[in-house]
Amino acid sequence: MLKEIETRQSIRRYVSREIPEAVLKTLLRAAMNAPSARNEQCWRFWVIRSRDRLDQISELSPYMKMMKSAPCCILVLADASAVLASEYMYYDCSAAIENLLIEAVHQGLGTCWCAIGPSLERIQNFKEAFSIPAPLVPISAVAVGYADEEKPLVDRYDETKIRFLD
Amino acid sequence: MLKEIETRQSIRRYVSREIPEAVLKTLLRAAMNAPSARNEQCWRFWVIRSRDRLDQISELSPYMKMMKSAPCCILVLADASAVLASEYMYYDCSAAIENLLIEAVHQGLGTCWCAIGPSLERIQNFKEAFSIPAPLVPISAVAVGYADEEKPLVDRYDETKIRFLD
Repeated sequence: MLKEIETRQSIRRYVSREIPEAVLKTLLRAAMNAPSARNEQCWRFWVIRSRDRLDQISELSPYMKMMKSAPCCILVLADASAVLASEYMYYDCSAAIENLLIEAVHQGLGTCWCAIGPSLERIQNFKEAFSIPAPLVPISAVAVGYADEEKPLVDRYDETKIRFLD
Repeated sequence: MLKEIETRQSIRRYVSREIPEAVLKTLLRAAMNAPSARNEQCWRFWVIRSRDRLDQISELSPYMKMMKSAPCCILVLADASAVLASEYMYYDCSAAIENLLIEAVHQGLGTCWCAIGPSLERIQNFKEAFSIPAPLVPISAVAVGYADEEKPLVDRYDETKIRFLD
């Protein structure tokens, strides 16, 4: 198995080290090379690196405290006008985000994927904080940075979740 | 960038060659090592390899014709009772599927990801064809096999979809 898939974990503590812009672009290139429904590519990526903004995000949800130490947050939004149904925003953005997380491991980075949608409260908080115009919808916030924690590897393989039909 | 991410493509023609069961399990291990909301891991995987069943799937949606040549379809379902909101089924299953697609490239396989949900018609077609009991919901069908086509690489990186906030 690809070691990037095997070793990816949710990292919630980061060292204060900037991510080179070329590396960030590589993460976004990986994200945009995900498949999307009808190839609609409804994703958008807002890269947030100012300390004030990152601290602000850490207050927008009780589950985003890790943004306080992260040097970067990639806010992933969907263009709701590009999709046939809202579920496709989650399909497309999730595929893109998973690519980004895997590529981040490849680049020596840690990440933590935080859902914004479908919580209406979190969506509203982000819309207000970042003046997000319709038809864009904030889907997820991804913390990115060099890890300041080591976690034991967990293999979530669970054979009871597989059924071989014959 | 990881070459598996760079070279993944939707493959719609397959040679008739079985996939070793150990390889299939590696794909499913990769899938289950994706992150999920609240670590709920709502995903389930039904592995379908009988020719009759695969041919049947190719008739359940106009976009699943490739199942006619695929030696395997992994039907990805979600346990709706495990999630707080239906969108999380799409988050979790999409992250798992993207891992599966990337690992498939690593194993020399091609894939094609076909959405079932949110189309009520497709969901109903699959529920009936496979006697899927509630609370399971069919989310996507993924064709898996050794490719019988070569496609030019497309880089979907699009800088207009990125915004650097400062």
